[in-house]
Amino acid sequence: MAVQTAQNAADSTTSVDLGPAAALSCRECGERSPLGPVFACQACFGPLEVAYDLPVGDPEGLRKRIEAGPNSIWRYAPLLPVPADVASQPNLNPGFTKLIKADNLARELGVTGGLHVKDDSGNPTHSFKDRVVAIAVEAARAFGFTTLSCSSTGNLAGAVGAAAARSGFRSCVFIPHDLEAGKVVMAAVYGGDLVGIEGNYDDVNRFCSELIGDPVGEGWGFVNVNLRPYYGEGSKTLAYEICEQLGWRIPDNIVIPIASGSQLTKIDKGIKELIALGLVEDRPYRIFGAQAEGCSPVSRAFKDGHDVVRPVKPDTIAKSLAIGNPADGPYVLDICRRTGGAVEDVNDEQVVDAIKLLARTEGVFAETAGGVTVGVLRKLIETGAIDPAEDTVVLNTGDGLKTLDAVAPTTGPSATIRPSLEAFREAGLA
Amino acid sequence: MAVQTAQNAADSTTSVDLGPAAALSCRECGERSPLGPVFACQACFGPLEVAYDLPVGDPEGLRKRIEAGPNSIWRYAPLLPVPADVASQPNLNPGFTKLIKADNLARELGVTGGLHVKDDSGNPTHSFKDRVVAIAVEAARAFGFTTLSCSSTGNLAGAVGAAAARSGFRSCVFIPHDLEAGKVVMAAVYGGDLVGIEGNYDDVNRFCSELIGDPVGEGWGFVNVNLRPYYGEGSKTLAYEICEQLGWRIPDNIVIPIASGSQLTKIDKGIKELIALGLVEDRPYRIFGAQAEGCSPVSRAFKDGHDVVRPVKPDTIAKSLAIGNPADGPYVLDICRRTGGAVEDVNDEQVVDAIKLLARTEGVFAETAGGVTVGVLRKLIETGAIDPAEDTVVLNTGDGLKTLDAVAPTTGPSATIRPSLEAFREAGLA
Repeated sequence: MAVQTAQNAADSTTSVDLGPAAALSCRECGERSPLGPVFACQACFGPLEVAYDLPVGDPEGLRKRIEAGPNSIWRYAPLLPVPADVASQPNLNPGFTKLIKADNLARELGVTGGLHVKDDSGNPTHSFKDRVVAIAVEAARAFGFTTLSCSSTGNLAGAVGAAAARSGFRSCVFIPHDLEAGKVVMAAVYGGDLVGIEGNYDDVNRFCSELIGDPVGEGWGFVNVNLRPYYGEGSKTLAYEICEQLGWRIPDNIVIPIASGSQLTKIDKGIKELIALGLVEDRPYRIFGAQAEGCSPVSRAFKDGHDVVRPVKPDTIAKSLAIGNPADGPYVLDICRRTGGAVEDVNDEQVVDAIKLLARTEGVFAETAGGVTVGVLRKLIETGAIDPAEDTVVLNTGDGLKTLDAVAPTTGPSATIRPSLEAFREAGLA
Repeated sequence: MAVQTAQNAADSTTSVDLGPAAALSCRECGERSPLGPVFACQACFGPLEVAYDLPVGDPEGLRKRIEAGPNSIWRYAPLLPVPADVASQPNLNPGFTKLIKADNLARELGVTGGLHVKDDSGNPTHSFKDRVVAIAVEAARAFGFTTLSCSSTGNLAGAVGAAAARSGFRSCVFIPHDLEAGKVVMAAVYGGDLVGIEGNYDDVNRFCSELIGDPVGEGWGFVNVNLRPYYGEGSKTLAYEICEQLGWRIPDNIVIPIASGSQLTKIDKGIKELIALGLVEDRPYRIFGAQAEGCSPVSRAFKDGHDVVRPVKPDTIAKSLAIGNPADGPYVLDICRRTGGAVEDVNDEQVVDAIKLLARTEGVFAETAGGVTVGVLRKLIETGAIDPAEDTVVLNTGDGLKTLDAVAPTTGPSATIRPSLEAFREAGLA
């Protein structure tokens, strides 16, 4: 795999304006390098993340500035790797989705300390991916890229296609050639190029890595590869929004789905930033990771007390979480252990049950990933890992309309009758 | 059909608190009757609508109160038939969806005076129906109903199921028995009763009317029948939001889809209220109605100069607009003529083209109804009915994920290739 290191890109990016983003920093060795379209440390090849000069010292002023900002992630522009005028650029303005007070669900689960659902199905293309892609778009703009790209089997393809269309980029998205027809339509409708690759998702990824190292890929921003350090930061906004919507308060427990694990680590990072900035009171909180049993390498490692995550071959209906070798697995284990949380998994039947539970209690139709988090929440309460007297936030990161197949076999009419009152009475539904 | 008149219901509803709603008023003869679960005038059987005691006299104070309110339709509670504390009740909190500045689409259409898309796919169940159902829910609460019901072939079923689940109502929704599997899942997943009726949509409607007149239907609120006067008012919020989001200004032109025509009439009513309250400057505006050619009885009447709408048998892919005998057709004709607007229609091919146009320019994937409005907008500009130097708002009332079939036959990958750089170069996409 061709790795573009920080040094290669440094020359052209010295005057990049990405707001408070000061540099890239290696998560392994701490080595800093200039902001650029790179994802691996020059010194140790560890993953890079964005380091900031954050606006410390005036929490009251910052809080007011945020609260007066737009109803999107751009209200947090002072804490993100984006230029200050980001809200005036054409983009999808994702975020500031509803934090739903889930009293009905709380009653069913025996939670007395407060329960909220952070519902990211309200984003423009109906998944949390709009958050991360929006940040990647701004980085792509700053680095002068003209094509946005990614490999995807679902949510990300739509998010990239839509964001590119509106933001004035060409897009070229790569998918396995045998994806379901509905997903192909969602990925293709925004008018960018969509390329089916003869092979599975791993083949698609390998091909994209080749492309980045080749002259053909010049000027291309792969949102989750060479723009990954920026892309990942979009997930911090989930932490910001949850705390702001709770009245600038950290909840006791947060239940987060694990695919690559990036989202969970960035939510933790976001909370720590809010504490450092004085926007929330420093207090203990527990981070819980949720996986589907059919793809639960991090849960396995957590339960076995290991620091290393053993890759698995995914077999679950929760396809948006089906990453068998999660890059951020070790960091997830560290965060869940350090905060006193846990990683748990549920099987596909429990996923479907949880989707229906959330729908019938709160009117929220979640994607399978939301079934995983709500199912895991139920399990964590039953096992005592989460104290029902504490307050908990559970994430729904996608929309049930995109995974209808998961619930279709067990969801149908109560009855089918002739159009007569007699038939209706006989059906016993009156 | 059994009609419940105002007098029947008056006794039980004398102390109903629906905020500024003062009475029901007949749209034909003006006769007033008390607030109740009724939809036909006692005097002339004309349609009833809500009459208000609106908070006139302090526009500045009212504007501030609205702007400090929640990011949902409840910011306009002082102008809606709901109790003042509505935002603290469990409901889906729809509305305050994005008004998207559509510069890319404007360029494609040659609009220079400003173009915005009011995108109601951002509502909780991804259609504007969440607005009208939310108001019906509050009326159902006020009248002591325990079951929410409707007949539906799509969006409304999901909106009622979801709202009932969260708001603590039982729901019982009626659909034609041969609906597509995906739509059945969306209607059933919220856990209420879903009844397939052996017959077409007309049969379902007739059966619901029977049910309302029968003891079996006691305690049932049919959102679009006996709660219709309240339900309809939800569409006013589209006018409020458009004007507020434009900086408390009425746009020159608004393009609105026509199904029953109710939405269009309520948007006009909403604008007139804002003028009466002093929240916006009184100025001319034009209302345009949009239909699909395969169900265009109002467009036909407009073009023929008739005041009466001749029913048709619908045949179009825009199923959410496929009402062949639109109840509010005559009112629509009156409004479009009075304001200097028009009613226009586009064929199914133009609907699909317009869906794709909106997706590739603004990253918004619209339902077929959104294809109808954008397609009609294009036609109105081409024919000169809309002046491109004026500013225009076009409505997207639903989500493309719900009508994938419309674009599927013509939306797919640009290429399918082996995972190799050579194959990619040969495909001509580099």
